[in-house]
Amino acid sequence: MSEFFDVHSPSIAISKITTNKEFPSLKKDLIKTINSLDRIIAEDIISDIDLPHFDRSSMDGYAIRSQDSNGVSESSPNYIKVIEEIKMGNQPSKSIKSGEASRIFTGGMLPKGADSIIMEEDTEELSDNFIEIKKSISIGENIIYKGEEIKKNKIIISSGKKIRSQEIGSLLESGITQIKVYKQLNIGVLSSGDELINPHENITPGKIRDINTYTISNLIMKTGSNVKNYPIMPDDFDKQLIQSKKAYKECDILIFSAGSSISYRDTTAKVIKNLGAPGIIIHGISVKPGKPTILGLCDKKIVIGLPGNPVSAVMIFINIVQPIIEQLYNHKSLKPYLNCILDDDISSKTGRVDYVPVKIITKDNKLFASPVLGKSNLINTLVQSDGYVVVPSEKRGLYKHTNVKINLYE
Amino acid sequence: MSEFFDVHSPSIAISKITTNKEFPSLKKDLIKTINSLDRIIAEDIISDIDLPHFDRSSMDGYAIRSQDSNGVSESSPNYIKVIEEIKMGNQPSKSIKSGEASRIFTGGMLPKGADSIIMEEDTEELSDNFIEIKKSISIGENIIYKGEEIKKNKIIISSGKKIRSQEIGSLLESGITQIKVYKQLNIGVLSSGDELINPHENITPGKIRDINTYTISNLIMKTGSNVKNYPIMPDDFDKQLIQSKKAYKECDILIFSAGSSISYRDTTAKVIKNLGAPGIIIHGISVKPGKPTILGLCDKKIVIGLPGNPVSAVMIFINIVQPIIEQLYNHKSLKPYLNCILDDDISSKTGRVDYVPVKIITKDNKLFASPVLGKSNLINTLVQSDGYVVVPSEKRGLYKHTNVKINLYE
Repeated sequence: MSEFFDVHSPSIAISKITTNKEFPSLKKDLIKTINSLDRIIAEDIISDIDLPHFDRSSMDGYAIRSQDSNGVSESSPNYIKVIEEIKMGNQPSKSIKSGEASRIFTGGMLPKGADSIIMEEDTEELSDNFIEIKKSISIGENIIYKGEEIKKNKIIISSGKKIRSQEIGSLLESGITQIKVYKQLNIGVLSSGDELINPHENITPGKIRDINTYTISNLIMKTGSNVKNYPIMPDDFDKQLIQSKKAYKECDILIFSAGSSISYRDTTAKVIKNLGAPGIIIHGISVKPGKPTILGLCDKKIVIGLPGNPVSAVMIFINIVQPIIEQLYNHKSLKPYLNCILDDDISSKTGRVDYVPVKIITKDNKLFASPVLGKSNLINTLVQSDGYVVVPSEKRGLYKHTNVKINLYE
Repeated sequence: MSEFFDVHSPSIAISKITTNKEFPSLKKDLIKTINSLDRIIAEDIISDIDLPHFDRSSMDGYAIRSQDSNGVSESSPNYIKVIEEIKMGNQPSKSIKSGEASRIFTGGMLPKGADSIIMEEDTEELSDNFIEIKKSISIGENIIYKGEEIKKNKIIISSGKKIRSQEIGSLLESGITQIKVYKQLNIGVLSSGDELINPHENITPGKIRDINTYTISNLIMKTGSNVKNYPIMPDDFDKQLIQSKKAYKECDILIFSAGSSISYRDTTAKVIKNLGAPGIIIHGISVKPGKPTILGLCDKKIVIGLPGNPVSAVMIFINIVQPIIEQLYNHKSLKPYLNCILDDDISSKTGRVDYVPVKIITKDNKLFASPVLGKSNLINTLVQSDGYVVVPSEKRGLYKHTNVKINLYE
């Protein structure tokens, strides 16, 4: 047996890659803001204007001098002359003097001389362009001042942030129609195994359909990266090396998914060693499932060997590969989770991190996490689950009825 | 003032649309499984085979008759003859009799006569095709039986489920390469306002750039629907009606975003009334922000009038429009949230639901939610926030240091 496990914890395994001097850095792309959803900003974005760029009303009402409302009340109103209706999108043409008002709408531009907006519901329309004002208001009431949202030359959005709908809105509001984002990674997926056939093929005894290529490529897409799938490779070193070298040239990252038997793992390790230096950095991570994972760096490209078991492959991708990819994009996402009560005991071993799929159930208005049982690591256990609980390395398990954090699949 | 608010709570407003007899139902599409990520399954998926479709090993080791290991231990091993190495993807050619074993790898097919797999680490290789077995094992050990994952004619995935990577894997494992999903909705976005200009245009006094078209269209894409954006409309009923009728023909749902002033809201309401029957169902929802929302049904098409304020538009989309869209897709998503400690008081009023944007901060290893302050509802308050807290209708606010649930933006 040529395999040797110098097994590391998940966090150490990740940092041995991300802090390695061969860890690559990503190029940047200039793209249209309107097409930037879910991309990662690669520069601090500075506003070149004040926003709003004019004092504006936040209500429907009348622009007045606030001193005209001093001491005014429902029982003792004041009478004011309306000199203009300010059209939306237009500049006011008249200045407000004492005893005067201009009709203004939400978002309308404040006329000169006025220092406040009295809301429509605090006024009464009279004839002859006169209104009654029935409330005392203070300077600045219902006004959004120039620069109150964003000041010129301030950072609107910092580098490393993932673009959501509101960032697109904010950027466009400032007239920023193009931004620099991190280039999308091209990630190649290579599955191997003499027992594998393609999903559209009929199964015969001993054969199974390749699914890792597809589960992994869809998880890759969820990270905002591009995927290139390669044909299934036989368990043959020479053939694998030829296809892997081609994929290495075409992609930024390679992800191998080999069978779970030792001979398969050996072949993958040998291929990775032949792709570039330094080669394999981590061989074995103290987790279940997914122990026989390989993490490597081959001449500034990340190369991963995932376990062949479909559940192991998914769990390792989410917990090991995804954090490495996020580090490349210079972005740390908020991982969604739910706090639940554990519905059953979970047993584990100290010295290893366990990822246990759970189904979330509501009972008496409380959320319970029920471990999905299954003799082995079958993909169906993930289909049945809403998320997974992490049993930390120092624990021998988790007890029924304790509070647990459930990581949701993204 | 022609406007009349018969204001409803958010949940009643939603159900008045989704339970209306004019509420539409969605068509179905047959698509390739490999392209189905994030789509909603529109039929129960039945397996037409047992999975695995043969008894297989879950370990590297030797297939034996378990009775040959009775009473066996490290100090008192048994000797067994290896008669075959079962190649991955191949059928075994020999049956196992007492005293015999076949070498087998993870995923390999169980030979006839064997009833268990002894793990490699519980054996010792001797010369002359003999091994020593050093542990007593029971029937079925390390075997995954035919049909143990999925039984023929059982439902693999139920209608209404959103496809994740693992569902794609499970479907492909069963050879299901095409599935029926709900047709993607085509949703039209129509913004209006005389003060609006396009994001690439230079601003002049009184004008602001249209951002709602883009924040809303990106939120629509996040629901898995298609978006069609229409040009900005002036505050002119006739012009709006012409463009809206065109959009009504081209889309399944229309979303209007008008300015926040009464005249704009009146025009939108009038347009919706002219698009079809019954027209406006809800005019006003007891929420802040977003009270002047319109929900309508026009001849089996959903028509929404969002408030013009950018924050109101986003909050109403997430909390009112998205649940309606999910009902159409027949899918209820698990909403990610975080439990946090409130970092400051939040004041509200009874009789209305408040959506308050918060930033999540870690202090002493605890998560705190800090309300994002801002004089008015500026899009930047959403940029600064990670999620929002919902202040329920019966509360006058939330106190500092209480535990709150923070809904994360998706």
